[in-house]
Amino acid sequence: MDLKRIQQLIQPADSKILLMVMDGLGGLPKGLGYGTALEAAATPNLNDLATNSICGLHQPAGTGLTPGSGPAHLALFGYDPFRYQVGRGVLAALGIDFDLKDKDLAVRGNFCTLDENGQVADRRAGRIETAKNRELCRKLHDIDLPGVEIFIEPVKEYRVVVVFRGEGLSDTIGDTDPQAVGQPPREAKPGSSRAGQTANLINQFLSQVRSILSGEHPANMLLLRGFSQRPDWPQLADLYGIRPAAIAGYPMYRGVSRLIGMEILDTTDGLDEELDTLESHWNDFDFFFLHVKPTDSAGEDGDFDHKVELIEAVDKRIPRVLELGPDVILVTGDHSTPAVLKSHSWHPVPVLLHSRYCRPDSVDRFGERACINGGLGPRFPATDLMPLALANALRLKKFGA
Amino acid sequence: MDLKRIQQLIQPADSKILLMVMDGLGGLPKGLGYGTALEAAATPNLNDLATNSICGLHQPAGTGLTPGSGPAHLALFGYDPFRYQVGRGVLAALGIDFDLKDKDLAVRGNFCTLDENGQVADRRAGRIETAKNRELCRKLHDIDLPGVEIFIEPVKEYRVVVVFRGEGLSDTIGDTDPQAVGQPPREAKPGSSRAGQTANLINQFLSQVRSILSGEHPANMLLLRGFSQRPDWPQLADLYGIRPAAIAGYPMYRGVSRLIGMEILDTTDGLDEELDTLESHWNDFDFFFLHVKPTDSAGEDGDFDHKVELIEAVDKRIPRVLELGPDVILVTGDHSTPAVLKSHSWHPVPVLLHSRYCRPDSVDRFGERACINGGLGPRFPATDLMPLALANALRLKKFGA
Repeated sequence: MDLKRIQQLIQPADSKILLMVMDGLGGLPKGLGYGTALEAAATPNLNDLATNSICGLHQPAGTGLTPGSGPAHLALFGYDPFRYQVGRGVLAALGIDFDLKDKDLAVRGNFCTLDENGQVADRRAGRIETAKNRELCRKLHDIDLPGVEIFIEPVKEYRVVVVFRGEGLSDTIGDTDPQAVGQPPREAKPGSSRAGQTANLINQFLSQVRSILSGEHPANMLLLRGFSQRPDWPQLADLYGIRPAAIAGYPMYRGVSRLIGMEILDTTDGLDEELDTLESHWNDFDFFFLHVKPTDSAGEDGDFDHKVELIEAVDKRIPRVLELGPDVILVTGDHSTPAVLKSHSWHPVPVLLHSRYCRPDSVDRFGERACINGGLGPRFPATDLMPLALANALRLKKFGA
Repeated sequence: MDLKRIQQLIQPADSKILLMVMDGLGGLPKGLGYGTALEAAATPNLNDLATNSICGLHQPAGTGLTPGSGPAHLALFGYDPFRYQVGRGVLAALGIDFDLKDKDLAVRGNFCTLDENGQVADRRAGRIETAKNRELCRKLHDIDLPGVEIFIEPVKEYRVVVVFRGEGLSDTIGDTDPQAVGQPPREAKPGSSRAGQTANLINQFLSQVRSILSGEHPANMLLLRGFSQRPDWPQLADLYGIRPAAIAGYPMYRGVSRLIGMEILDTTDGLDEELDTLESHWNDFDFFFLHVKPTDSAGEDGDFDHKVELIEAVDKRIPRVLELGPDVILVTGDHSTPAVLKSHSWHPVPVLLHSRYCRPDSVDRFGERACINGGLGPRFPATDLMPLALANALRLKKFGA
């Protein structure tokens, strides 16, 4: 759905929408004759809710495609994940809760090993430990270049984020990572005439990095890729006429939420703490995104049984959520993370939408197979969910007379 | 579906298609544990038909969007309602069965009250009665401007339609309705250089209106909005190679049908009279649009039980319709009008399509929940219906070799 179309039909209302995302919710049976983790879990409260909901399964990025967390969440919020793509540098900065400003230039970095001829011998510097990474980043803090502020932030093992803050920076800069061993790091090359000055700056920066790290081993250089700037995207409040808030314990999800203008509420990644946050801010906003991370991690770890437990833990808290009286409640995942795959997957994700006006279908339990027969359909675009939520919240006017 | 694609594949055939539209058919349960009006109704004939049909639920204007009657019907006829939009003036003229010519300029008008300073005190002139409206329109008939014929037609209460007929009229004219009280009516402003003369003409017209109504109270002026001209749209006969006829008791539906080239058959809004009309013209056309209005009105009135009765009345007449032997019969609504909402809504609309070649699914009753499992799917675009009807009528050639 075209976001502009929705925007033109927005009308004000007092209603509140709650979007509860169990990350990586969808799954696969752990073997023949088994159910998925969601089907295996005892979910009496979700089943009751499903009985009075319209259900289905959504596809975050289209048929057969396995989305990352960024695109999958953007789709849930109504943004076509192919149209709204974030650069790797920005995504990395968001992933460490870095407060990226409008004109900042962010890039992802790898500590690497150069041999005596200056050629890349190991693109990951033997996967140095995070502590070593931090130590090296501290050394690089001494770099000083005219007109820019430079942030060099450790991530994990050999990975860093570098952010350049200044006027007139351009993100059309080629990667310096040659993506192969036996070659020297590339120069930062401008992709447009406007980017020449920025490329010079990056090359000066890299020359200082090389000199500072020259005595180090194995991490004696930095490779950069994915130069990008914070995108100028439509904001949720403007698009949908809502006051949106995000409750997410993990930086990456806060970051994506921030990009589209959600207020980020202070919370931890505990489920009860997230619900405390939800309750204490219930009167301040009318759209809440509540993110539950561990279901995805259990899937990534291949731990089917733990994923079951985590889903049951969410189910137990559904009554507490319903007590707040949301006008519209959506329960879903951002994508599937089957334990047997130990990774994100392309499988459609179960969803239930409950409101006074949702027109319940015949689905009476919340699970992948049950949702196939739901009124929303077995494979609909995740971007349909926001228009549906807004309609059920009576926040959309009639189109045409 | 792109209309051009369909047009290129049209082949002649003797088959007849009947599209029966129960306006506002789709609904919501009147409470927990209830069915919708359609589900609550005793519909043995429609259930039999559904058993031998392919079923599903369509969305007239996309997910979450509540369409007006105009866009919803255009979608049923295969026209993307976002691409084919009618101006407010044209729609108002169609709504009173005004026979709009190609170059006519139509606009919607409100009688309003101006205070002694010439500012709008009431945009609806205290909602004057329709009889008063008619009397005022008669007075305005005296207005005479060079080169144009002017029609001032009462609608209801304070609303009128004004049509200017002449050469070289433009519809890029701004509204004179300030949409607020405490401001004077606006001048008619041209939105393009070509529209200057038209704007002058409108302003002369309004100046005469003001002088003629100066002694009246509360309706002493006219506010105009939605200047528009009859759109130049592809006609059904050209697109689909059919001879199309509309049987509709209400002006609005006749109007929309006229815009796309249907023959408008004389009828009243009684169901039996409509069926008389259908029977007596059965040999003259090969596509019939039969419109049943009262189901929508009952929904708008919030009268669930009356909607049930009206659906049952239609059901009783299904055998009479089938006796004509249509090759393809579609029964559906243009949109949902749930009694609990007392308005149009975004909910998908049940549809059954029966033909000798329809490939029946497992749906054995005509209702919202049953249709979810139909072969057409639970949320397909209404614009799919015309291609499906034409295919089932064997009026579409093979695509490619």
